[in-house]
Order: sequence, then C-alpha cells, then structure tokens
Amino acid sequence: MKRIGIIANPDAPHCRQVLRDLSRLLQEKGARVLVDQEIAPLRPEGAEMIPKPEMPGVVDLIIVLGGDGTLLSAARLVGGLGVPILGVNLGGLGFLTATPQEEVPAALEALFEGRYVLEERMMLEAHVIREGIRLGASLALNDVVITKGTLGRIINLEVLVDGEFVTSYRADGLILATPTGSTAYSLSAMGPIVFPTMEALILTPICPHTLTNRPIVLPGGGRVEIRLHADPQAVMLMLDGQVGFPLQGRDVVEVRRADARIKLVRFPQQPYFQLLRTKLKWGER
Amino acid sequence: MKRIGIIANPDAPHCRQVLRDLSRLLQEKGARVLVDQEIAPLRPEGAEMIPKPEMPGVVDLIIVLGGDGTLLSAARLVGGLGVPILGVNLGGLGFLTATPQEEVPAALEALFEGRYVLEERMMLEAHVIREGIRLGASLALNDVVITKGTLGRIINLEVLVDGEFVTSYRADGLILATPTGSTAYSLSAMGPIVFPTMEALILTPICPHTLTNRPIVLPGGGRVEIRLHADPQAVMLMLDGQVGFPLQGRDVVEVRRADARIKLVRFPQQPYFQLLRTKLKWGER
Amino acid sequence: MKRIGIIANPDAPHCRQVLRDLSRLLQEKGARVLVDQEIAPLRPEGAEMIPKPEMPGVVDLIIVLGGDGTLLSAARLVGGLGVPILGVNLGGLGFLTATPQEEVPAALEALFEGRYVLEERMMLEAHVIREGIRLGASLALNDVVITKGTLGRIINLEVLVDGEFVTSYRADGLILATPTGSTAYSLSAMGPIVFPTMEALILTPICPHTLTNRPIVLPGGGRVEIRLHADPQAVMLMLDGQVGFPLQGRDVVEVRRADARIKLVRFPQQPYFQLLRTKLKWGER
Amino acid sequence: MKRIGIIANPDAPHCRQVLRDLSRLLQEKGARVLVDQEIAPLRPEGAEMIPKPEMPGVVDLIIVLGGDGTLLSAARLVGGLGVPILGVNLGGLGFLTATPQEEVPAALEALFEGRYVLEERMMLEAHVIREGIRLGASLALNDVVITKGTLGRIINLEVLVDGEFVTSYRADGLILATPTGSTAYSLSAMGPIVFPTMEALILTPICPHTLTNRPIVLPGGGRVEIRLHADPQAVMLMLDGQVGFPLQGRDVVEVRRADARIKLVRFPQQPYFQLLRTKLKWGER
Repeated sequence: MKRIGIIANPDAPHCRQVLRDLSRLLQEKGARVLVDQEIAPLRPEGAEMIPKPEMPGVVDLIIVLGGDGTLLSAARLVGGLGVPILGVNLGGLGFLTATPQEEVPAALEALFEGRYVLEERMMLEAHVIREGIRLGASLALNDVVITKGTLGRIINLEVLVDGEFVTSYRADGLILATPTGSTAYSLSAMGPIVFPTMEALILTPICPHTLTNRPIVLPGGGRVEIRLHADPQAVMLMLDGQVGFPLQGRDVVEVRRADARIKLVRFPQQPYFQLLRTKLKWGER
Repeated sequence: MKRIGIIANPDAPHCRQVLRDLSRLLQEKGARVLVDQEIAPLRPEGAEMIPKPEMPGVVDLIIVLGGDGTLLSAARLVGGLGVPILGVNLGGLGFLTATPQEEVPAALEALFEGRYVLEERMMLEAHVIREGIRLGASLALNDVVITKGTLGRIINLEVLVDGEFVTSYRADGLILATPTGSTAYSLSAMGPIVFPTMEALILTPICPHTLTNRPIVLPGGGRVEIRLHADPQAVMLMLDGQVGFPLQGRDVVEVRRADARIKLVRFPQQPYFQLLRTKLKWGER
Repeated sequence: MKRIGIIANPDAPHCRQVLRDLSRLLQEKGARVLVDQEIAPLRPEGAEMIPKPEMPGVVDLIIVLGGDGTLLSAARLVGGLGVPILGVNLGGLGFLTATPQEEVPAALEALFEGRYVLEERMMLEAHVIREGIRLGASLALNDVVITKGTLGRIINLEVLVDGEFVTSYRADGLILATPTGSTAYSLSAMGPIVFPTMEALILTPICPHTLTNRPIVLPGGGRVEIRLHADPQAVMLMLDGQVGFPLQGRDVVEVRRADARIKLVRFPQQPYFQLLRTKLKWGER
Repeated sequence: MKRIGIIANPDAPHCRQVLRDLSRLLQEKGARVLVDQEIAPLRPEGAEMIPKPEMPGVVDLIIVLGGDGTLLSAARLVGGLGVPILGVNLGGLGFLTATPQEEVPAALEALFEGRYVLEERMMLEAHVIREGIRLGASLALNDVVITKGTLGRIINLEVLVDGEFVTSYRADGLILATPTGSTAYSLSAMGPIVFPTMEALILTPICPHTLTNRPIVLPGGGRVEIRLHADPQAVMLMLDGQVGFPLQGRDVVEVRRADARIKLVRFPQQPYFQLLRTKLKWGER
C-alpha cells in the first residue's frame, strides 16, 4: 500500500474536505497519494496529479469518494488490472461505497493493519455484433441494459444462452445484471436480490408486455446472445447506466462474464445483509 | 346509422380487402360510407373521402380497422363529440378492437338490428403547467405517462391528489392509467387489471428505485398533480404512447378525468373476462 | 353523542390506563359510558356494563381501543346498525384505528365540537351455498378469504362475476377484499392499494400456481361466486382473518357488497396517504 | 443397467398400461425389472416385487411413472445412494418427469445406447432443533417450507445465514427452495426462476406483511437458521410439500445443502428453457 490513488466525484457533498483529510491521513501513514487530474481544483496538499486512465497502472489501491456511480466508472477503468478498490460514500445509496465518510479514519487503520478482505466481484463483457463484425468490448460491473428510446415503441428481443433459445421478449428493454447489480436497476424491474459474490447472470425484462415473464437467474459462465429484431427506434445499449451505445436493427449483443474481476476492500463490520436492511430497508415494516 | 365513417390503418394485414367488404356491406344496408383521406389509395367503391379531423363532426358511427393503436388515436380525435366507435381487429392484441375481422358481417347485422350496447369509457385530460402558465390540454384513453429519456437518469416526481401530497417517486417514469389502460402499459409495469367501465385512476410507477412501491387505485374524480423536480434530462409526457410532449424542470402535469367519454360498441358475445383470458392468457396454466 | 360505548382489547398495551382516562374525559363531557362486559376487570369508574352484542343497539358511538383486529370485530358487530366507530390505536399497525392514544384528548375535543367526518366504508356479505341450500350470511370489513389447510394441497376454484365466468384459480387460496382490506392481507399477496372509500372488489389469488395471474379490481356492486372443485382438504372460509368456516367439496361461496356500511370517525389531520406512508412506509427509500 | 426399479403413482392416468409396456421393453433389453410393492395390483408380467425403501439399495436406475410429486418422493428415498432417476410424465406439470409417456420407447433406446446425461441436482437437509436437541434430519429436493396453520395468524421468523442475521419475516410462511424447486412453490410466491443445476438457496417469503420484501438468492453452501418466535399456532415444517412436521414455539429449523445429490437422466432433446416455455408458458404472449 505504498501508492494510493483517489478518484472523487467533485460534486459530492463534503468532497473537498473528505479528500483533504483522507490525503493527510494517508500521507501520515507513509503512502504516496495520487489524485485524478479531473479534480485538480480540489487537489489536497502533497498529492500528485495523474490522468485518470493511467491511475490503475501505477497504484496499489484506489479509494473512491462519491456514490456508487463514481465507483462503477472506477471499476470499469480498473478492469482486469486487479487493483483493489475501497469505496467511501459521500451521500446517496452507497451499496458499493460501503464505508461512510465518518468511518474513514477507522477504515484506514483497519486497512493498514490488514484487517480487511478483498471481495471479488464478477463483471460483464458486452460485444455488439453488427453484420457479422464484432465491435469493441465494454465492461460493466452492475449491468448491461438494452432499452428502447423515449419515443420508441416496445422492442422485440430474442435471447439465447450458450446457443440455446431461451425466450423472446416484447418489452421496454432487458437487463442483464451481475449479482452486484441485482440491487441496482434490476431490482427496480422486480428482479431478485442475489448475493453479490455469487457467479450468476440475472435476466430481468423491463416492463414486458406479457403476464408470463419472470426474472431468471443463470449460471455465471453462460454466454448470452441478445438478438434485436428489425426496426428498433433509437434502441440503446447501456453499461452500468453510464455509457451508452446506439444499436441498429439486426444487431446482436453478446454478453458474458469478463475475465476481469473487481476486488472490493470490505471490512468485517459491514455485513451484506446489514447493507440490504439499511440501504434498501429490505424486510422493514 | 345513416353516415358511417371508417378509420383504418393501411399497414394492417388485409386492410384493403376488409375495407372493401365492409364498405359494400354498409352500403347494402343503406348507409353512406365516409373514408378518411389518409387512406385515399385504398378507397373502396362508393365511399366518400373526408379529412380525418372533420369525420367525427359528420358521422353517426366510426368503425376502426386496425389494432388498439388505431382505435386510441380515433378515440382522442372523437373526444367529447360522442360518436360511438366500433373496433375491428386486423391482427395484434385487440383489446379495444374486440371484433375479429371474420365476425364483421355478423357484427353489422347485430349493429343494424340494435343488438349491441354502448359501453362508456372514461378518458383523461392532461395539462402541462409551466411557470404558472397552463399549456393546452390533451386527451388520452389509455394512459398519461411521464418517462425519462433514453440516456436520462432516474427522475424524481412528486404526486398530489386533490391538493394532498401522496408520495414522491424516484423511477424511470410514472403511468397514470384509466381502467381501459389497465391492460396496456400499466400492466407491463405490474399494475392491476381494473374492470374497464369503472371510474378510477391507476397510478403505476415504472421501475421505481425502492422496494416499497405498489400501484394505487384512486377514485376517478380525483385531480392528480405531478411535479417534476429540477433537471430532468429529456423527460417526456406521452399520451396513449402515441403523442409526445417534452417536459422541462419544474413543470407540473395536471391530470384529471376528461369531460369527454368514449362510447364503444360492444356485442354481448364479447364478455370482458373472455378477452382477458384469450388476449392476455390471464389465469392460464 | 349522549351514550358512548367502548370496546377494548384488554391485552393491548396500556389498555387499562387509556380506558380509565378516556372514560373520565367522556364523563366530563356529559356522556354516559358503556363498557363491554368482556373487559369487566378493567371497568373504569362511572362506566356501565353491557353485553357486547347489545352495545350497538343502544349507543351513539363506539370507541375501539386496540388494533385493527379489535376494530374489525366491532365493525362486524355493528353491521347495518349505522353506529359510528372511532378507533384508537394501542400499538400495532393501526390503519383503521388511526387515532394514536396520545391524541385521544384532542380527538375528543374535535369530536364534541363536530370537527370530524364520518367516512363510509363498504363491507362484504358472504354466503355458503351447500347442496343448493344457502347457509347464513357473514359480514367482513376487510376481506373474505378462501384458503387451503396447512397440510392441504393446492385448491382449485372457479370464479364467476354476475354469472359470467371470470377465471379458474389453482392456488393456495383466494382473497376477495374491500378497498379497506386492500392494505391488509391482499397487499401481502401482491394486491394493489385501493383508495378506501371507493366501491370496488379486489380479487387477489394467494400463491397462484401460474405465471399469468394478476390481481383484478371489479366494480363494488358485482356478485362474485366462487365454486370449489371436489376434494378440498380442510379448506376454510375466513372473514377478516378472524372467523373461520370449514368448506366442503362442491360448496359455492357467494360474496357481494353488504347493505351494511361502516361509518368511521375521521379527523382532518389524518389524511389517508399519510397513513400509507407512515404505516406501510409506502414509497419510502 | 442390469436391474431397473420402477416407482409409479397407481392413480396417474394410463399407469397400468405404461407400466406394462415399459416393463416389457426393459425385459426385452435384458434388464431385470423390480416393482415397488405398493403397486402390487398393477404388477406387470416378469417383474419382481420389492418393498419400496429397499429399492434404491439394489437397482442401477429408478424409473418414475407419474408426476413431479412421485419423483420428489422417490428422490428423497434415494437420498445419498446415487441411483439415477428417470422421470416419465403421466399427465400434470412434469418439470422433473420430463419424458412424456409417448417418448418412452425412444428414451429407452437412448438410455441403453448411452445417449443421455446425468444431471446432478442439489438437495436440502433440514433439522429441527428443539430446546437444544437436534431432531432427525429430512431431505428435500424442491423446498423446505415453514407455514402457518389454516386458522393461525401471521408468523414471525428470524433468519440467519452462516450465523449472520439476515432479516425477520412477518408472513404466512417462508420457502427455502433449491434451484430445482424454483419453478415449484417458490414461483407461486413470486420467487425467481433459477437454472436448475446451479448451487443456490432461494429464500422466498409467503405473503409477507410488508412492502419491502423481495426474494433473495444465496450461495448454495450457506447454512440457514430459521428461528420461530413464540406462540406459533399450528406452524408446520413441510418437505417438498409432502412430508409435514409440526413445529413448536422457539424451535429452530436449520437448513443446508445435503451431501446427497440426485442424478436425473436427461436427454438432449429436452432443453430446460423449452420446459419453461411449454410447461409454464414462460414468456408467452
């Protein structure tokens, strides 16, 4: 833990102050602090600047300050490089950024004393295949979503898993989520909660125009092929709800577990079920 | 039943032929047939042409050939003019266009012999209030929907009924459906089926980001106010999924039961529950 | 408001004390207080005793101390006699017993000054028809439920409304709820929330063994017939979850809106949507 | 495949005939046929009788004739003995008994030519711990269910996984299903479909009295502890919906993956997704 990168959402509440305190604490512990150039105006004393895309290649750990959105984009940036990520929540839901800002000093103590675990999470890799040509791959930690345009009509999709026909959907869209993503968009579309370290793919339709649909949980190792029927109007492929890619009629989207896996720093006092209860009020009356 | 207008979807299967047969049957029964100018190329012998917007003012009945979409736009066109509508289904789901094309001759017999009922259906009227100014009203037979843009993030809405705060939604959108619309988009978003002649408003959120939401059925006479929070990105107001109107931050959408009511011609052999079972496979195993 | 009856659940927390305070306040206002004989040991000073079944015939108002369960049984007791009911909540969910115990003095002020409304709620009347013979009717304010026995297997029901076949259910049971009951058992079985003063019947299956079922909301005036198929094992008819009646194969249960209507005393500061939000955490994140 | 046992449901349609044909075909292929003593009256020519409990110890394969219920009880009988099971469906849903009776000759061809796979399915093992004493274990292939009695009220359960508190349920009951069981009772209670060869536990509440519940999918290796709160009225533990065990207040039910695994004979022409589509009409419009 010699070199520690910080990626922050400068618009998150208290970002400047948490960044400054965090940077000071890290330097007191002998770490070099590298800060993403995008937050140059907030650069704390003693921290070095580095372009964000280069950060995962040169640090031992990335601390994310912000909400789950900030962590999701950091995760896609890290991809297969294996750098652990520690998420600090500056307001918002904070499923992935499980450490509240007031617990930062204690978390750093635990971190430098080795009282933590690295929790591996599977990611997805999505390809678009257009007229037989495979367009570049994209990573997602939460979900790969195919969704209709605002003015668009219902879309027709056909899904195959490992080459076998699964079902066709007539819906506003389709979510292919990881267990990590099961508490994100998939949950809104009535998907089940899936324990985050499992190896599984969750297929949840968005507003299917049938009574017979029900989310399905598939083995993590499956290769999912989603075939668009002709004439989609402004259909989009979305990665973690953050990166969009416009699709065309007859496109095929192929999704599978990525080789890349994310390592989240987790502390023992943050059991997953407690997150469910406090963040989602799961089971509350 | 002297003058009968026909509105048809020219792209529906067998449209030309059904139109021709229907027109002939009507003329044999002594009716004048008026056809919407948009389908001029399909004009059957003996039928007169009329611009579509003028049709409801001069006919005693409108027969719709097509799917529910064609009937929805005809219903908004008729609005408060009280002209009955008879829907003939040319393929597709056909909840509103309940008469299959092969039953057209029998249906016309029943029609001219008075063996039918006029089933009244409530409609909605939506206004957008922007900076205190009330923008023009729009009608909907199925639903008024507020929905996020394709690339947009979750939207925040606040709902009041008769001036009383109901709840706030953090969702992809919100559906305000009539009982007629309860088997359309609202059903896809997990809304209940509501018997179509009831007077009720159904409030169904689209992918709400909370576990605690559940559709709510309100009295038909309520005045619903939907307040958008700041910064919606490409939020749209949609009427029956057909007419779109872009919303801005701080817009208020006011929805209430329209004075206009639609009269659907229904035959005794088309009970609603049978439609549910055959069209939606409701209750099927 | 000369004679006021009190029905209380003696096991509810603080029952003795609330009863004593309430009785004193009522007598100070010049009312005669009548207490149900079942709570004789808790009889407050100055209160008269009366057998519970006789109470609705001789009082101007019944105050219920307890939870919704206590109010439900009081409502069935009052039936068509038209005596208003004021519910005071001693712990528990308290949808119907909307007045918290600490607000009793203020509520009594409002009551005696006429600052309240009488909210009418529809009730259900259920008959069992066995071998052509109509067995005695029963009332329910929340719901009429047909449910399988613990060891029983799935049951098969056929439902007709106003003589028309609706659908058949293969399920653990079937709930027929009033709008008042829509936030009770029906909600647990995924039924919609229905505004409580509406006239409607909600048909919600319990664990239907099909993907295609969905709750349906019907006009309040409909006559619902539920036909049991042969060989039910220990199938029960339950009224408000409180009164049970064992059914036999080939029994028909007929349910319709009762002539009796309950009048609940409501105060302006208890809007329904606030109850939804605070009691059910509806819409909460 | 020298000795083949047959377990049949004598009440299933065509049982006698299918049993006779099957027995003859097997003997023609040189196999010894052993038939369960319970179906003595249907014993086909040349078949030997054996008490059912002894069958798994002496045969190379068990063929089940009936519905999924017959196969479930055969699976619990086989337990850890590793004898493969081939299910032939005589009417009914037939998820596990995937071979229709008319395909029996072709299936036997495939079987004796080795054109099949043995699909392993995890099972559950449930213990009741009463006053610190562990009562005997029971197996389940579909699900372990804790359910309230017919006249009982809502029950309160607390669930722990691997010693960590998960949530408390206030519900009619709780289903702990295997992926195999995800298309059975759990599906009726709104649980997700889980691919049947996955290692997972599905926790689905039955009619939870809260809006915030949602099924959760847990790793297959977890140890689930379900603690009953005091005063359950006639609460039952059910295994595969077939074997019941009455619970008492303060009982703890411990459920974990059994060491025993079931081996189902599957033929290539029976892909799982096709079963979903044809048996459940999943995704159908």
